[in-house]
Amino acid sequence: MKRTKKFLWCFFLTAFTTFVFLNTTSQAQDAPLASWNDTLPKQKILEFVSTVTTEGNAEFIAPEERIAVFDNDGTLWAEQPVYFQAYFIVARVTELASQHPEWMDKEPFASILKGDMKKALSGGMESLLEVVMATHGGMSTEEFKHIVLEWIKEARHPETGKHFTDMVYQPMLELLDYLHANGFKTFIVSGGGIEFMRPWTESAYGIPPEQVVGSSIKTQYDVRDGKPAIVRLKELNFIDDKEGKPVAINQHIGHRPIMAFGNSDGDFQMLEWTTSGSGSRFGMLVHHTDADREYAYDRNSHIGKLDRGLDEAQERGWVLMDMKKDWNTVFKK
Amino acid sequence: MKRTKKFLWCFFLTAFTTFVFLNTTSQAQDAPLASWNDTLPKQKILEFVSTVTTEGNAEFIAPEERIAVFDNDGTLWAEQPVYFQAYFIVARVTELASQHPEWMDKEPFASILKGDMKKALSGGMESLLEVVMATHGGMSTEEFKHIVLEWIKEARHPETGKHFTDMVYQPMLELLDYLHANGFKTFIVSGGGIEFMRPWTESAYGIPPEQVVGSSIKTQYDVRDGKPAIVRLKELNFIDDKEGKPVAINQHIGHRPIMAFGNSDGDFQMLEWTTSGSGSRFGMLVHHTDADREYAYDRNSHIGKLDRGLDEAQERGWVLMDMKKDWNTVFKK
Repeated sequence: MKRTKKFLWCFFLTAFTTFVFLNTTSQAQDAPLASWNDTLPKQKILEFVSTVTTEGNAEFIAPEERIAVFDNDGTLWAEQPVYFQAYFIVARVTELASQHPEWMDKEPFASILKGDMKKALSGGMESLLEVVMATHGGMSTEEFKHIVLEWIKEARHPETGKHFTDMVYQPMLELLDYLHANGFKTFIVSGGGIEFMRPWTESAYGIPPEQVVGSSIKTQYDVRDGKPAIVRLKELNFIDDKEGKPVAINQHIGHRPIMAFGNSDGDFQMLEWTTSGSGSRFGMLVHHTDADREYAYDRNSHIGKLDRGLDEAQERGWVLMDMKKDWNTVFKK
Repeated sequence: MKRTKKFLWCFFLTAFTTFVFLNTTSQAQDAPLASWNDTLPKQKILEFVSTVTTEGNAEFIAPEERIAVFDNDGTLWAEQPVYFQAYFIVARVTELASQHPEWMDKEPFASILKGDMKKALSGGMESLLEVVMATHGGMSTEEFKHIVLEWIKEARHPETGKHFTDMVYQPMLELLDYLHANGFKTFIVSGGGIEFMRPWTESAYGIPPEQVVGSSIKTQYDVRDGKPAIVRLKELNFIDDKEGKPVAINQHIGHRPIMAFGNSDGDFQMLEWTTSGSGSRFGMLVHHTDADREYAYDRNSHIGKLDRGLDEAQERGWVLMDMKKDWNTVFKK
């Protein structure tokens, strides 16, 4: 009897030690994707991840090829009534206006200064990027990082009153955690500015700067008084949208991803490139259907237009995620 | 007596379980840098890594900021008598020559076809990249990857008779392992072609494609007959050399590294940018001093010229690693 007790105690101690180490090393998740309803999108994600991570399975994919790419605006955080980077631009334009009297008569600066964001943004992403060039160049990359961090700490969304980093989607945070726990490396591939995103993506999403891909302006290495800096020029380098997304994925990541998540036609080619590779592939479009909890928009929106994607998702085997039906929580808890 | 035995047995089992898990999770290294002699460079590396990884230390650096960048040619593998990518170019030029009769009278193609590599390369890295543009465009990125892999599997160095991937430096492989085991993320930042390196850097160095930065040509996303491809254009995108290295580090990595390793003046700005950041920083230049085991060259070499670096290493606090004195093994064992 005594021997049995000792044995059990010893067995328990060994098992407990094993358990502690397993837990600290593999981030056990008891209920992944808790903010996703038990509808098709969640089932498809769980099924796909299980398929490609089960060793011995014909569809098994080695960890180094488990690359998942995410659009940012409208996919990881909200993007209405305008891209959140636009509020940063407004703040910058307002701050710099006294040095630029010519902006009063020049679009889209004039509309921005009058607070008419719709008019200012009527040119879409490219127009927005033009203002980025004009207002975001001329300082070092380290100064720019500081400016972004100061802004994002304080600025609030005009309709929800929330900090922008509190308007990231809770279900997507859970998805990122779930993928990380299953050996995936996640990348942001966004039309937004690469150096606008990098200062806060690690704290917001757990995605480090080197896994953030975006639009960029040119930079130049410059040594002044023996002190080196990387200076941001007022010149476009790359627009990471539409056909640009697969090009940037190839340039920055050098693998074809196996999962891609987007929400607009700007993500079409990224999903097409990802899901046309051989073996198991996964594409999902976030469909903004929830006017009560978030926004409802698709084919006719000037921000995040989803038209071709809606038409072709089914034939291409992409999952159309209906925010209203498929998520029980929207924003970060 | 029996109780003591049981206790010891149980204690042993628990300790053993702990040991097994610690070993599988932290890659214990009993003797790091075995191919480095116990001279200053090895001492400096061990000291630096210990300083920045010891928690509670004032100079402690969090794992996410432990970024180390490595030049490739002459730093991770050899580069004499010409950059190894030049042999790949010769193979490509030879293969494609029948389609390009005009190359017989056009430099540097004519010299390449005559086997006069010194003349062909007299224009340095930029001339080399020009031939890369002319001979390496026109196919998809996936076709190019296949071409590179086929070549590197068979091709051999004309002087050593070794496969090129066997001419990687054993001490650097140990250094990469040592850094990985200490939470560092390592990147290649090379003047060589990004898509020339990526197919084999993971097997050669344990560095995945997304951590390889290099020179590049432009690419274009193209869908033909419903099948998407990324097509390599015959147009320069970026030269990752000299002032280009800090620019590419910022673009691809988005952190300022804390360690940088190079061997030529093409790495000067990368080391300057890395070591002028705040906190603990480390810069090392590989000085090729061993004509018996490898090659001896510096100020007057047309490949891997090291001149300004030799003059300024000491005042800048960079470690000058003397291959002859500081490495007891050169090539991969």
